[in-house]
Amino acid sequence: MRQVSSILSFETPGRSLTDITRAMADWLDEAGISEGLLTLLCRHTSASLLIQENAAREVRGDLLTWLDRLAPEGPHYAHDDEGPDDMPAHLKATLTGVNLQIPVIGGRMALGTWQGIYLAEHRAMPHRRQIAVHVFGE
Amino acid sequence: MRQVSSILSFETPGRSLTDITRAMADWLDEAGISEGLLTLLCRHTSASLLIQENAAREVRGDLLTWLDRLAPEGPHYAHDDEGPDDMPAHLKATLTGVNLQIPVIGGRMALGTWQGIYLAEHRAMPHRRQIAVHVFGE
Amino acid sequence: MRQVSSILSFETPGRSLTDITRAMADWLDEAGISEGLLTLLCRHTSASLLIQENAAREVRGDLLTWLDRLAPEGPHYAHDDEGPDDMPAHLKATLTGVNLQIPVIGGRMALGTWQGIYLAEHRAMPHRRQIAVHVFGE
Repeated sequence: MRQVSSILSFETPGRSLTDITRAMADWLDEAGISEGLLTLLCRHTSASLLIQENAAREVRGDLLTWLDRLAPEGPHYAHDDEGPDDMPAHLKATLTGVNLQIPVIGGRMALGTWQGIYLAEHRAMPHRRQIAVHVFGE
Repeated sequence: MRQVSSILSFETPGRSLTDITRAMADWLDEAGISEGLLTLLCRHTSASLLIQENAAREVRGDLLTWLDRLAPEGPHYAHDDEGPDDMPAHLKATLTGVNLQIPVIGGRMALGTWQGIYLAEHRAMPHRRQIAVHVFGE
Repeated sequence: MRQVSSILSFETPGRSLTDITRAMADWLDEAGISEGLLTLLCRHTSASLLIQENAAREVRGDLLTWLDRLAPEGPHYAHDDEGPDDMPAHLKATLTGVNLQIPVIGGRMALGTWQGIYLAEHRAMPHRRQIAVHVFGE
């Protein structure tokens, strides 16, 4: 049993879901662990991680619209130093979460057929985001 | 230290919370790990995993009703290929999440007294759902 | 590779976010693991764990207000044995989740600069809450 960890960086184009499934599979290949457990932690409070549908593009659009509806911009927040999209971004990151864990079985992440890993950017402007990744196993 | 992983299948009766606590305890017994970490990943985008109250049945009913309120069916989704319950199911799965991790201490999952593990089915119809499980330890 | 686990207790003052980042860092120091993976499980169904902004206090206030808006008290719940704040507390715990995983790199939790670990108390009255913690590595 051994472990590998790293801090990866991704550029986001502002409010969006960026598919990082391939990047994670590539990192896992480099790590050389074929049976084990992969963990991701998004190191931010206004971006997050989630697993969702990787085929129908409309699902991602509807998801972003729904998050806007649950955590709308508006004058009712005490925290607005960084603009109207800031506090909604914290709320969306809380709802979706900053952690993912994926068993690694037979050299591959044990995701379902329709599952992709997404870095969710909740701020309006482009950002550089860091994800701490860790895998252990054999 | 060693690890065991598997893909388990569960039948759901449509929109519901299925208690899989006993099934997970049984699987853990078979794996023979008494100190370690258990990880679950639901391999779907319209079903999910959560830990909630295992005693009062009303809590589960109220929870399902609340999810319906936060992610209602309606004509406002772009994604509706699979019926009106499809997009709400993706949203509910995103809110509740597809991952759980449970420390194993003294031969048992370190759950609280009132905690049960639930497979949440968000589609209206019955489905067969897969959960990737992984445990490591000694 | 070795592992350490424990059950930690925290007093909460009722509905609030309690910063437990320092307590977790201290526990990790005692465990003596400098490269590995830290897991937390809140052993309750009306309290939860989340990672959020550790600097601007207003973020935490806005977050609690938002949770009140998404899961308001009211007469529409079937489960009300323990008072009007009980069912909303279960819902808020479900939304935020009871699990966290944090890679440990170079002797420290790999949190972002602005990330703190919070125990979220969703009941109105003070409670004593337990968190199962587990770390493995070397």
